[in-house]
Amino acid sequence: MEHLQEQHPAHSLAFVEDPEHGLKVPVTEIALDDAPNGEANAPLRVYRTSGPGSDPVMGLPAFRSAWIAERGDTAPYEGRERNLLDDGRSAVRRGEASAEWKGAKPVPLRAKPGQRVTQMHYARAGVVTPEMRFVALRENCDVELVRSEVAAGRAIIPNNINHPESEPMIIGKAFLVKINANIGNSAVTSSIEEEVDKLQWATKWGADTVMDLSTGDDIHTTREWIIRNSPVPIGTVPIYQALEKVNGDASALTWEIFRDTVIEQCEQGVDYMTIHAGVLLRYVPLTAERVTGIVSRGGSIMAGWCLAHHEENFLYTHFDELCEIFAQYDVAFSLGDGLRPGSTADANDAAQFAELDTLAELTKRAWKYDVQVMVEGPGHIPFHLVRENVERQQELCDGAPFYTLGPLVTDVAPGYDHITSAIGATEIARYGTAMLCYVTPKEHLGLPNKDDVKTGVITYKIAAHAADLAKGHPGAHERDDALSKARFEFRWRDQFSLSLDPATAEAFHDETLPAEPAKTAHFCSMCGPKFCSMRISQDIRNEFGSKAAQEELVDIAAGMRQKSEEFLATGGKVYLPETITVGAPE
Amino acid sequence: MEHLQEQHPAHSLAFVEDPEHGLKVPVTEIALDDAPNGEANAPLRVYRTSGPGSDPVMGLPAFRSAWIAERGDTAPYEGRERNLLDDGRSAVRRGEASAEWKGAKPVPLRAKPGQRVTQMHYARAGVVTPEMRFVALRENCDVELVRSEVAAGRAIIPNNINHPESEPMIIGKAFLVKINANIGNSAVTSSIEEEVDKLQWATKWGADTVMDLSTGDDIHTTREWIIRNSPVPIGTVPIYQALEKVNGDASALTWEIFRDTVIEQCEQGVDYMTIHAGVLLRYVPLTAERVTGIVSRGGSIMAGWCLAHHEENFLYTHFDELCEIFAQYDVAFSLGDGLRPGSTADANDAAQFAELDTLAELTKRAWKYDVQVMVEGPGHIPFHLVRENVERQQELCDGAPFYTLGPLVTDVAPGYDHITSAIGATEIARYGTAMLCYVTPKEHLGLPNKDDVKTGVITYKIAAHAADLAKGHPGAHERDDALSKARFEFRWRDQFSLSLDPATAEAFHDETLPAEPAKTAHFCSMCGPKFCSMRISQDIRNEFGSKAAQEELVDIAAGMRQKSEEFLATGGKVYLPETITVGAPE
Repeated sequence: MEHLQEQHPAHSLAFVEDPEHGLKVPVTEIALDDAPNGEANAPLRVYRTSGPGSDPVMGLPAFRSAWIAERGDTAPYEGRERNLLDDGRSAVRRGEASAEWKGAKPVPLRAKPGQRVTQMHYARAGVVTPEMRFVALRENCDVELVRSEVAAGRAIIPNNINHPESEPMIIGKAFLVKINANIGNSAVTSSIEEEVDKLQWATKWGADTVMDLSTGDDIHTTREWIIRNSPVPIGTVPIYQALEKVNGDASALTWEIFRDTVIEQCEQGVDYMTIHAGVLLRYVPLTAERVTGIVSRGGSIMAGWCLAHHEENFLYTHFDELCEIFAQYDVAFSLGDGLRPGSTADANDAAQFAELDTLAELTKRAWKYDVQVMVEGPGHIPFHLVRENVERQQELCDGAPFYTLGPLVTDVAPGYDHITSAIGATEIARYGTAMLCYVTPKEHLGLPNKDDVKTGVITYKIAAHAADLAKGHPGAHERDDALSKARFEFRWRDQFSLSLDPATAEAFHDETLPAEPAKTAHFCSMCGPKFCSMRISQDIRNEFGSKAAQEELVDIAAGMRQKSEEFLATGGKVYLPETITVGAPE
Repeated sequence: MEHLQEQHPAHSLAFVEDPEHGLKVPVTEIALDDAPNGEANAPLRVYRTSGPGSDPVMGLPAFRSAWIAERGDTAPYEGRERNLLDDGRSAVRRGEASAEWKGAKPVPLRAKPGQRVTQMHYARAGVVTPEMRFVALRENCDVELVRSEVAAGRAIIPNNINHPESEPMIIGKAFLVKINANIGNSAVTSSIEEEVDKLQWATKWGADTVMDLSTGDDIHTTREWIIRNSPVPIGTVPIYQALEKVNGDASALTWEIFRDTVIEQCEQGVDYMTIHAGVLLRYVPLTAERVTGIVSRGGSIMAGWCLAHHEENFLYTHFDELCEIFAQYDVAFSLGDGLRPGSTADANDAAQFAELDTLAELTKRAWKYDVQVMVEGPGHIPFHLVRENVERQQELCDGAPFYTLGPLVTDVAPGYDHITSAIGATEIARYGTAMLCYVTPKEHLGLPNKDDVKTGVITYKIAAHAADLAKGHPGAHERDDALSKARFEFRWRDQFSLSLDPATAEAFHDETLPAEPAKTAHFCSMCGPKFCSMRISQDIRNEFGSKAAQEELVDIAAGMRQKSEEFLATGGKVYLPETITVGAPE
């Protein structure tokens, strides 16, 4: 299976183990060549999101089932009946989805009456779950940090009990910055097979979660294939599917249709759902003077509904019911920012911050039900206004994880918005955003293909990792240092295997110097073989690597300075450090 | 000529004029379609770096010659004799360069005895030159700002009197952030034709200056072709050519060989030169313990020389002579950071900051000769340490323009270092860096081809522009706002033509929705034709665009709230904003 291939021949699957609790966390181990002086370079282990690999028609093993069963607070039940409309009008016509899921389908579980089965509930009760231990091994941190952050609402472990195939991961500012990749079909393009392929592709390159934003045909069945094959949490925006059920007419939406869609997705195993409950009727007019109005799809659906009915957003008025449902499956809220700015001109405006106030209120309401929450953020924000977004969100929402799209720091570069947004993403993650939603080069223009997904994921791994370094996250610099050492030692193969995209790095190198010996050569194409700055540095280290040699040189330099000073004292001219006062220009 | 083609059919060459002084500054005018309501959208004028266009074998007209002559402080002279070794050993064998320059070659000028012909000299004397007026028109600012910033050393106008083809531009933190593109051949690849092509390509996409870093054959002649065709200032690192003259043996370099190379380049018209005069003998051992030693090519050449001779760097000891030379041609210093960190592990270390102290000293020394100066900066810096670099440089160097390479904020992504570095570049420019040296996707791996040059330039236009927005530079947001308005109004063609890379934006759009009608459709591929968030926003604006309508909705919302409050007062339950105290986790 293509998916099971490692990124590079030097990469292999290894495990960090906790034998006491029977836990094995997959990591990628990168083998390294010896240093030129013969010293061995220890292999480097890095975080791995691609899971054990699966055949798409079979799905992944339900490895968390035993943990869930052991807690004894859930029970299987018949579940909601399958409705062909879940897959859209074409499935109703056809009598089936275009490619029915034939693999094993777990019987839906939900909490026994009166129980809450969320990781937040356990954490608050002082219970350390296997999920928390798995996360602690993965993050290389103390499990008590995991438990206490989840208990306080500052981190979430999104793991629906009906998605037992998923490997626990944590989203919170005390942990590694995570990234999300959006996939999903639309009315104009894509197939189920392609979407599963994108899922596996995205997690291979490092997506920590994946959102299925399908709006086309076969929404239910596409999601089934995705969840059954996903080693990472899956997020959705259920209003998208609900809208399809009413044939795209926002005003025809009802709480009942929405609620039914949420139950459908809870039973399938969706781990977190974007809920645009902060788009209040009275906020809608605040967007009328904007350059780009409401750009969030979910936000505009709810705004459209509010206006059509002149009633308050039903997601807001029924929010407590949603909390009760989510608590039964351990679905996390991703509180949608339906009024996020769609242009730098609209950044940090009254509409955006009014909604944030409501999201803060809803965060605390969800916590009353032990439901895990993260809060979504923008969008398009000029660089100097980015920091305010995360600091304000962290303060208002008592540290609930912030999950932002970019933000893009300029509007002038469609086709390059993975870059415009990675700049803002690094800044916002540095100040505490816990997860970054990727942006691909196709943003604003079209639907991402496989190449775009890869480019988006790698660009966001860069932003997340740069933020980890900036935050001084323990161990974050190890991969940088290993790669830099390989660079200095002309271990070209190790430079490739340590990079986020080994094949691309190697291909770029080979474009200029394709011959095999160039991969072990002590030079590169920039300076050529005659002169090489790295080689001179090696010579310096060889000559002055010892303290004694360094001191000798400092002595020589000091001697020179002394001679200069003597010279100066006798009235001579010499080039010494001096402060020169530059006169005013006029 | 390919070069003369505009980026897009909606782009055309226009001029901002100052008839009083006979000045015409080329700008790119972007024609826009009418808004859906029939209102005209005024064309947008944007900064243009591509010049009037030239046939490579003819070169550009020497349009600044009259300005230079009019000042009466320069005189033509015979100049240094052509030496075939200037073009390398292969030219000596061959008896000529591989493609001699056959176009017009201006007779070299230099200052009359006792004169200084630098823009800084004129600025300090209170003289407003045509170059300053040209810059002020280009930047849309007061000419007095230009003059006073140049006089104070906080900005430079790099325009060698022997490069009369160049259009004046300014580098300083009070002005638009500029970007530089590096081109040049190496021992392993490239031809003269390709390098001229890269120059025209780089300036077409927005490079404000270009550095010719050739290290292979035909260095002199390649540079001649480049300068004669360049509408932007050309920078070099003369030690590269000097090293070729001694066959790559750094220890064989002498001040005399270097000085002769500098004169050669002054006479050709190089506008600024990187001089690694801050690599002092006593600093060299400070690099011995680094992860990546000395990575600057020029830095390691000088370190190698210092070590071989156990003498102080001849660029430092002869610095005043260099100032005297530069003052005769108006060549600007770009004080090289030969000890810049080559990995995030080495960032902001003793070696780096020791050299910066010396660069500050040299800045002030150059100013004594009225020579314009900018100071080069790193390199590889973790995001949280970036700001310190520019603030320290600005303080130590009394505001002399900072010119940085990136910096890269992580080392783990070879193949994507245009992105890792654009993140750092935006941050460092936001706090005052005046010019950013681009990094291409081939950084660390190979030599950039034409595609890489374009990607590097556009990525850096993004960083520079994002910093301009963050600094609140007057007018910087106009292009963003025009594009956002076009987006909101579904003017797809205008979205393409307003973007930094119109053809790519259009191609990405067409990949998903290739049909011609899609370019005028009021939807896109993300949501499809059935539902569109932008359309709902339009509806909101249509309904609530008037104050009266907004107030009506606020009244409705207030009414709802009042009813809720009444309901609550009677003991009912309703979902109102409330502060919920979340108990301690345990």
